[in-house]
Amino acid sequence: MSADGKIALPTRMQTRISSDEDMRRVHELRNSVDVIIVGVGTVLADDPSLLVSPEHVSEIRNPVRLVLDSSGRTPDEAAVFDGDADTIVATSDECSRDFGGAEVIRCGKGRVDLTKLMSILHDRGHSSVLVEGGGDVIWSFFRERLVDEFKVFVGSMIIGGKNSPTPTDGEGFHSLADIAKLELVAHTALGDGLLLEYAVKR
Amino acid sequence: MSADGKIALPTRMQTRISSDEDMRRVHELRNSVDVIIVGVGTVLADDPSLLVSPEHVSEIRNPVRLVLDSSGRTPDEAAVFDGDADTIVATSDECSRDFGGAEVIRCGKGRVDLTKLMSILHDRGHSSVLVEGGGDVIWSFFRERLVDEFKVFVGSMIIGGKNSPTPTDGEGFHSLADIAKLELVAHTALGDGLLLEYAVKR
Repeated sequence: MSADGKIALPTRMQTRISSDEDMRRVHELRNSVDVIIVGVGTVLADDPSLLVSPEHVSEIRNPVRLVLDSSGRTPDEAAVFDGDADTIVATSDECSRDFGGAEVIRCGKGRVDLTKLMSILHDRGHSSVLVEGGGDVIWSFFRERLVDEFKVFVGSMIIGGKNSPTPTDGEGFHSLADIAKLELVAHTALGDGLLLEYAVKR
Repeated sequence: MSADGKIALPTRMQTRISSDEDMRRVHELRNSVDVIIVGVGTVLADDPSLLVSPEHVSEIRNPVRLVLDSSGRTPDEAAVFDGDADTIVATSDECSRDFGGAEVIRCGKGRVDLTKLMSILHDRGHSSVLVEGGGDVIWSFFRERLVDEFKVFVGSMIIGGKNSPTPTDGEGFHSLADIAKLELVAHTALGDGLLLEYAVKR
């Protein structure tokens, strides 16, 4: 995010917030987990491949890519369907669409039940999950109390805007008691920005 | 702000984000400047006195308090009119209201012209100004390229919410070229949070 807590312009246009050093960290982090999750909104807006780049990591083990897509809106030509790593699309029970080259997990009435999904992934031996975004998806994981760690790179810039996307959109916590408490575990300068690493308190 | 870039709950309810150590820093900072500026929205929501607390600072020199209030909405009973320090209300040219116990500076058509206001303050020998908020006012100073330094305390918590107040609300920068570039000057743990200090690049 920017130093004022935004992850894109108010127009939703992306800007490069990460430093080169932070890009390396992101790829190393991707390479260290079992599953990388993004929302369908991120797929529609940015079409990321979610692959680990050989530019940043030497021994690549490309984790499973998982798109949260309750109503099945991921385009057939999305980069996550390139076949270069396994891909799962998680939909609601009501969605009947199939996706060529991707497995489908249907779980949850109306929208994907994240707690149930985590349980299914755990039963398959997937114990570490990286939620890359966007803000609505990250918020949903906090709402469901499913987050163990929160890592955010703070880029040295001001974007501004009441309507600019933030790391945690959605409805937010409406009472003081609900706010998720964190513990600051590390803060590290990476290029011209700062990486903040937190553990979520229980 | 919280670790996800919010300064209050989505309901606009305040929560304590600063650590005790950060509260001391804020009062020392207040005591070191010539003028403290807030928007009328902050006065209406929180009614701050903007005084320096003897709990945190030994040699108090209470700077001038200035409320940005284009259309003259500050209530007569606002704490900034307590007489314990000088107070200025800055309004647009069109506002004819007076405020007991406060000087009025009328500058700007329709809304306060911040560049002109800074010039007026400078001519009076006021060379350092602290803009305490809220998010719309801080955004306005960035929009007008009037900011030299940006200091933000990052509290260890997640609030979430697309509509939660942030450090810089308003319309935000709509083109990549306009984004305000910062230089990270310092990062310091203060209690359980982190103070980030930036210089604005020219």
